[in-house]
Parts: sequence; structure tokens; C-alpha cells
Amino acid sequence: MTPRDPDYAARVARGFAAQGFMALLGADLVSVAPGAVEIALPLRPELSQHHGYAHAGASWAIADTAAGFAAQTLMAASDGVLTVELKINLLAPAQGARLIARGRVERAGRRLTVARADVVAVAQDGRETAVALALGTFMTLPGLADAD
Amino acid sequence: MTPRDPDYAARVARGFAAQGFMALLGADLVSVAPGAVEIALPLRPELSQHHGYAHAGASWAIADTAAGFAAQTLMAASDGVLTVELKINLLAPAQGARLIARGRVERAGRRLTVARADVVAVAQDGRETAVALALGTFMTLPGLADAD
Amino acid sequence: MTPRDPDYAARVARGFAAQGFMALLGADLVSVAPGAVEIALPLRPELSQHHGYAHAGASWAIADTAAGFAAQTLMAASDGVLTVELKINLLAPAQGARLIARGRVERAGRRLTVARADVVAVAQDGRETAVALALGTFMTLPGLADAD
Amino acid sequence: MTPRDPDYAARVARGFAAQGFMALLGADLVSVAPGAVEIALPLRPELSQHHGYAHAGASWAIADTAAGFAAQTLMAASDGVLTVELKINLLAPAQGARLIARGRVERAGRRLTVARADVVAVAQDGRETAVALALGTFMTLPGLADAD
Repeated sequence: MTPRDPDYAARVARGFAAQGFMALLGADLVSVAPGAVEIALPLRPELSQHHGYAHAGASWAIADTAAGFAAQTLMAASDGVLTVELKINLLAPAQGARLIARGRVERAGRRLTVARADVVAVAQDGRETAVALALGTFMTLPGLADAD
Repeated sequence: MTPRDPDYAARVARGFAAQGFMALLGADLVSVAPGAVEIALPLRPELSQHHGYAHAGASWAIADTAAGFAAQTLMAASDGVLTVELKINLLAPAQGARLIARGRVERAGRRLTVARADVVAVAQDGRETAVALALGTFMTLPGLADAD
Repeated sequence: MTPRDPDYAARVARGFAAQGFMALLGADLVSVAPGAVEIALPLRPELSQHHGYAHAGASWAIADTAAGFAAQTLMAASDGVLTVELKINLLAPAQGARLIARGRVERAGRRLTVARADVVAVAQDGRETAVALALGTFMTLPGLADAD
Repeated sequence: MTPRDPDYAARVARGFAAQGFMALLGADLVSVAPGAVEIALPLRPELSQHHGYAHAGASWAIADTAAGFAAQTLMAASDGVLTVELKINLLAPAQGARLIARGRVERAGRRLTVARADVVAVAQDGRETAVALALGTFMTLPGLADAD
């Protein structure tokens, strides 16, 4: 997958920094490559649901952001990105030191991009457990580049 | 839909209060009825994505919580609830004074419940715009009542 | 919902008649209204899965067709329609005299339409049981009207 | 992934043979391995939608069957399998000599299994194009082994 905008990584970093919600959650942008974006989220009590695990909404939010920005890495410099729909399957309770969402483009179209995100929980000892799998559709917004 | 646990509303209120994530977002439990739960989320910059609208993760989180607790209103007093999967379609940008998620059970089974949630944005003048529609599957966890 | 093409019903009928797959299944177009299409499918052994009920693929196919054509009823005369994605939740075993899929537009956009379809099984005595609920995204294809 | 039933492949073959719907479509069971099942569907006009491509319902049906039987390969000999929900994203028009659905288990649980299926179209010259990607949930039915 070849990026059309050589500045794609800086563009994703600007878009990520402009998301108040990622800051509220405490998420970090880990890596950006053509068609692939990784986001980490250190776990803490404020992210919990009623059983004490991380709320699925936290997994969904970083999955959506990782998959959406992965889609944007393949778009033109002037294009913005929007989530059309995203489905997530929860595979295991989200617990450990942090979550990592790995977004990856499955098919990039002119108007619509299909992307997935795998969410893993990382324990203190570094071992990973798959906690969620998301699949969604993202729309190209010509002329609506993000964070402008 | 007849609740099996006469104390269903108090149980949902306890479960909601035990979710650190709902407090982090600033969400409120508005109403609880058999098979139906409503959650409100006042909008503020901390909930934004990169275009300034509310992040879809905020809509997803309250949709999931409203639909999941709607499912739990029809379960036995000792049953906990878990999200198996939830898909959301984003219909319009989420902006205004607050979001409201209305969860509703579509079919309650012994093990699995299918529920939907409609998310609307409410403007300062009270007018509502549909912003998202979610459909998901929730699992009954016998003996794992929430917030215990 | 006001149709932009006064000939919308005849257009859907032509599109339906052009689907070899609907004929293979034995499905009938029951009704067409602005934003709403109904399709019936008489059940027979050729539609079964391995437990003897109707295969979920039969429910999915009529749900997709009903929701997609419901989307098309609100499009311009020259517009074609394409399924972007569709999720289905199976609620109960599909058995009885026939299935009916009722497609309905949830939100019609310029490029994308979100539509749902409810699938019910109808017994010999006319009683209906909900068997599936589908939610999906459909794309407008300008200048690619169907069955031309 | 280790199968609990050494006879898993024959069991899937019996289940597949018992599906009238797969015969109606003309689908073939290509291969069965632990956690992975492949199904082929030769394309013909009877499978078409209104633009002449294969109907998405044909892709969905073989994706569901491949993913569901992939889930069953990891279940006990006495367990049946049921689709809870399945979402499909359509990536490209389905045309060519045949479709192949490759189902694969993402996570096998005691009650619920999450599986995906990739659908490719194969041209006369053997080249493959990705046409669909499906992600779904399957339920274990203890004591309800298929095709018995």
C-alpha cells in the first residue's frame, strides 16, 4: 500500500492530537505506517465497567481511531476521514497494564475504505491477550482534511 | 416484557454507578423500565474527535451501556450481563447540548439477548437529531450479578 | 419520506425481477412504498440448513434485498444501489410457511443510506415470529440505475 | 488449535451435505482443518443480483457456512453449531469463475466462538480478488450435533 500523501504520518499525528476524547482516555499514538496505525491505552480505574474490567467503549474508541487513521494514511493530503459504521466483537475481559489497538486497511476504495482493528491487552510481563476484533467502514471526505 | 427481578431498576442504577467509564465521560442514567434504559451525555470539548464533533466512541459507549442494561432489566436478580458484540452506524455528526442513548431489548433469550440503541443529539432548543443506531448481542452471566 | 422518482415502485419491481438469485430462492416482491419494501419467501427443503430450519443465508438475502430496494425508493431515477455492508442478528429458528422481510430506511443520505430489515416467519395459521433483525449501509450509484 | 473430536472433518462433511441451501446454490466443501473450512461456489446467472454480479446473499451464505463449520471443528462430537450474528462488508463486485469462502476461528469459547470468513472471486486464469469480509458469532449447542 503506497501512501498518496508523503506527509501521511505527520497528518495522522495532528489528527490524533486534535481528538479531545483520546486525551480524556489517556491514549497514545504508537506507530503510523501506510495502511496501519497502532494506539496504546494504559488501563486505570476510570476506564472500568461494572465488573472492574476496562469498558468495551474504551476498546471500541481506540479500535475506531486506529482503523480510521489507518484508512487516512492512504488518502490524499486534502482528504478527511469519517467512520460510517464499526462493529466490534469482544473476545475476552480487558485487563492488564494497557490495551493496544492495531488498525489495518483491508480494502481502500476511492470513497469507502474497509479496515479492521485488533485490540490486545498487555500484561505487566508483556504477554498479550486478544480482547476484541473490530471491522468497519470509513468514508473519504474530499477537501476536509483533519485538524485544519 | 415482564421483569423477573422486581428490584431491576435499583440493580441497573448500582451497575451504572459502578462504571468508572460512565463517570469519566460524564454520563447520567436517565430512566430504567422493563427492557428499556435511557442514558444522557452532556457534550463538552473533552469528548471530541478531530473535527470537533463528539467522538463516535462516546456514542458507542452510551449505546452499549443503555442496550446492555436494558437487557439486564429482564434478567434474574443474580444474573450479570456482558456485551458479546455491538455494531453502530453513524448517521450524522454528534453535536449540540447533549447526547441521549435509548436502549431497547429486541429479543430476550435465556443465554443471549439482542438489543438496539438509538442515539440522538439534543440541541439547546430541545430539538433531537438521530446521530447513531446500534445493534448488538448481550450474554447472561448466571450468578455474576453486577456491582457485587 | 418523499420519493424523488415518481416511478420508484416500477423501478424496484424491475430491479427485483432482474435478480436471478431471488428467482432461485423463490422470493416474491410483496409491496413497495417510499422508504419501505416487503419481500416474501415461501419455505421449502431446498432452503434448509443442517438442522432443517431455513438457512440464515435465505434470511440474509431477502433482508438485504428488502433494505437495499427500500433505500432505492428514495433515490433519483438514474441512481443505482449497492450494499456496502449488512449485519444480521438471528433471533429464532426460521420455520413455518414463509418468511417475510420488511426493509425500512433509517436515514437517507446523498451518498449513503442506512436501512434495517426485520425478518419474520409466518406459520400456516398466519402467526408471525421474529426470526432476524438486520442493519446495514447502502451506497447510491449515480447514473447506474438498476436493470438497465 | 486442537480438535476435541478426532472425527471433526467427517462431521463437517455430514453437516454440509445436510444443507439443502448449499445444494441449491451449488456450493462445494473444499477443505476442512482444525479451525478452518473452505467452501467454493461456481458462479452462474441464477446467483446474480440486478447488475449481473453474484448476489451478496450468495457470498454471505458461503461465508456463514465456512465460518460456522470452522467453529464446529473445535467443538465436542456431540455439539451442534448455530449462527448468532454475522456481519459482512462487500469489498468488490463478485464476478469470475467461482467464489471461495475461507472461514477461520478467531477465538473459540465454551459457549461462543468468534470466526471470520474471507470471500474471494477466482477468475478463469486463477487470479483471486477479495470480494467480501465477514465477522460473526457462533453458539455451541451441547447435545445437538448436526445432521443427526
